[in-house]
Amino acid sequence: MDPIVELEMQCRRAKLASRKLAYTGTAAKNSALEHIADDLLSQKEVILEANAIDQLDARKIGMAPAMLDRLALTPHSVDLIAADVRSVAGLPDPVGEIFDMRTLPNGLTLGKKRVPLGVIAAIYESRPNVTIDITALCLKAGNAVILRGGKETINSNRALVKIIVGALERAGLDPNVVQFIDNTDRSLVPHLLKMNDQVDLVIPRGGTGLIKFVKENSSIPVVAGGAGVCHTFVDASARVDRATAIVYNAKVQKPSACNALDTILVHKDIAARYLPEAAAELAGSGVELRCDPRSLAILGSLPGLKLVPAVDADWGKEYLALIAAIKIVDSLDEALDHIAAYGDGHSEAIITEDYTNAQRFMNEVDAAAVYVNTSTRFTDGAQFGLGAEVGISTQKMHARGPLGLKEITSYKWLVYGSGQARP
Amino acid sequence: MDPIVELEMQCRRAKLASRKLAYTGTAAKNSALEHIADDLLSQKEVILEANAIDQLDARKIGMAPAMLDRLALTPHSVDLIAADVRSVAGLPDPVGEIFDMRTLPNGLTLGKKRVPLGVIAAIYESRPNVTIDITALCLKAGNAVILRGGKETINSNRALVKIIVGALERAGLDPNVVQFIDNTDRSLVPHLLKMNDQVDLVIPRGGTGLIKFVKENSSIPVVAGGAGVCHTFVDASARVDRATAIVYNAKVQKPSACNALDTILVHKDIAARYLPEAAAELAGSGVELRCDPRSLAILGSLPGLKLVPAVDADWGKEYLALIAAIKIVDSLDEALDHIAAYGDGHSEAIITEDYTNAQRFMNEVDAAAVYVNTSTRFTDGAQFGLGAEVGISTQKMHARGPLGLKEITSYKWLVYGSGQARP
Repeated sequence: MDPIVELEMQCRRAKLASRKLAYTGTAAKNSALEHIADDLLSQKEVILEANAIDQLDARKIGMAPAMLDRLALTPHSVDLIAADVRSVAGLPDPVGEIFDMRTLPNGLTLGKKRVPLGVIAAIYESRPNVTIDITALCLKAGNAVILRGGKETINSNRALVKIIVGALERAGLDPNVVQFIDNTDRSLVPHLLKMNDQVDLVIPRGGTGLIKFVKENSSIPVVAGGAGVCHTFVDASARVDRATAIVYNAKVQKPSACNALDTILVHKDIAARYLPEAAAELAGSGVELRCDPRSLAILGSLPGLKLVPAVDADWGKEYLALIAAIKIVDSLDEALDHIAAYGDGHSEAIITEDYTNAQRFMNEVDAAAVYVNTSTRFTDGAQFGLGAEVGISTQKMHARGPLGLKEITSYKWLVYGSGQARP
Repeated sequence: MDPIVELEMQCRRAKLASRKLAYTGTAAKNSALEHIADDLLSQKEVILEANAIDQLDARKIGMAPAMLDRLALTPHSVDLIAADVRSVAGLPDPVGEIFDMRTLPNGLTLGKKRVPLGVIAAIYESRPNVTIDITALCLKAGNAVILRGGKETINSNRALVKIIVGALERAGLDPNVVQFIDNTDRSLVPHLLKMNDQVDLVIPRGGTGLIKFVKENSSIPVVAGGAGVCHTFVDASARVDRATAIVYNAKVQKPSACNALDTILVHKDIAARYLPEAAAELAGSGVELRCDPRSLAILGSLPGLKLVPAVDADWGKEYLALIAAIKIVDSLDEALDHIAAYGDGHSEAIITEDYTNAQRFMNEVDAAAVYVNTSTRFTDGAQFGLGAEVGISTQKMHARGPLGLKEITSYKWLVYGSGQARP
């Protein structure tokens, strides 16, 4: 069959199957998730064998070690994936919540009911765990899902999808609610991105190239996150010990994360006291510091630091590595202006003991998450108490910050009348 | 100046000005709205003179009477526009609401704060009142606005924008929060639709051609509504008098509205009793009925009806006129399937005395608003108690149904720490 026609048929099947899934009860959805978790464990060998083929193919084409790492599954990682599926099964079902219900003077009783979005397409690269993660989250929230993984994990994905389909059937759900595009031809993606009659949301997971392409070519709403240039502003009144520990955590605890610190902004009145201590702590974990002239003047003569003069490109740069830029500012206003100019609306923090400055920062910084006296590393669905996350949104429409189950739902208005006509 | 460069500069100015507007207090925003309302009244003659030029130009190019009607302002319509602005000033300010606030076991206190979206671009045709309406709603919700009206109302819009700018200045707000694109060259629109770094939301208001173009060409999120194929299903157990009155209201009260009834689905067991009565009532207001073969068999011999055999194109057709399609179905399931196939997710109603069928309809129909025993004409921001509306969304992302002030806001996460680091 023509691959485009096949793609369209898959999208139509997903849409059709999503109608019934939307009002399928929690027990049936959880049963499917438990079957998926069971089968991941019982068929671990099959999965690892398929994954070994992907790894071999990847080595043949000389894939970089970091990429190889992402696609590799181990017995332990399969256990973790299964455990994650069970934890999604344990989360409250967001669907069916009734809210804002009230009776109007004309007797109409109306309000909102939380419903699934419908059909979510996931376009992703490398990591085969995304196949299971995103399927589990979509199913729990009552959404059908269209999976479009990368060609580098096609064998792993086939094995995982087989498990998903079997689990859906055993749970009595229509297996059409999960559609796997078993064709890694890149030219199919633009066609998928135009299926706005069938697909309600596209979630790209992968590098900035993929995300940019999806955003620019989709006529379906896109929620993409991931990128995050995160600033921490050390105010004049900050406690030096606290500022040192928080900045260290934000930079070092997981430098590859999108919520890791990129730029340290330091008030001029605390720089001479704060920077030597902070720099020594960061240097202990091998952090390279890209310094503006004023911070370089303070740190330049100290031993054991990896210092590099900052260039323009360092402001607004997401490092995803043990590198931080440092800039001394004259005031809170200068810090706010710098964040407005170079931040991308992910996570921003102030370290301060000044009440008014804390309040101004929280009010005036426009980002998904704004922090006072703690680490930007907390921007995460599990850390925020959402249970799990599909991703982190840096756009303002629909949902901002970590996307949990509730964030992949919509609502509809219910209106109960008794013969009312509009006057 | 090059018009594209000028457009980009306007978008940048709006973005910059939106930062401060986001945390401007309610009193200052309301003061600007009151000044706009005052000046609309005090400068009514100036507005009407500008509008007279637009009307003359429109007549010269032979504009259709319905279009001419839309662009014409009268002393009374200016009064109404001013009254609407005052009523927006009287609505509660959605910005600043704190919700979902809680303290986690690690001592972090976090929650959400409602904030403006930022910059909203309105692309619209004909009606000059949109210039004021959308500006008032955007300002009240703390959003900067970029106005791109049609060339047919350029003189009216210039006069109205002059009033807006003066009012902003007198209220002490930065007039850059409202940017009027004083250039009606259509080739500018695609450039505007790519300004995703400056513009957070695009609202197209106009014909389906405009909406389709914006949806397909925008890299900025779009909320477009307007179109609505609305069904009312008269179930076997419906009270005939009630079903007749509700269908009459849904079709006749304002046939040009997007929430007006298009197709009547009738259960076969009630058709012979219901249809003659309903058809007579509708015929009294001149409604043309497009009948499927079974309904034609019932109505065909009755006097005084405007009957036309339905063709395939009548199912899923939005008439915006005194026309309704009628189809007899064998069951609730057939009605649900018809609505799923031909509805576009706007407003759908069931008329029934059967509890289970009412519940099934409310659960299973996927639309912005689902109704039992009342008229789809109620899908409207003011009728739903939202105070005012920017439009009606038929998509599922962000907000569904009438978009009030709250629906043109976003939120940010506030996280208050005391030195916490992520373990």
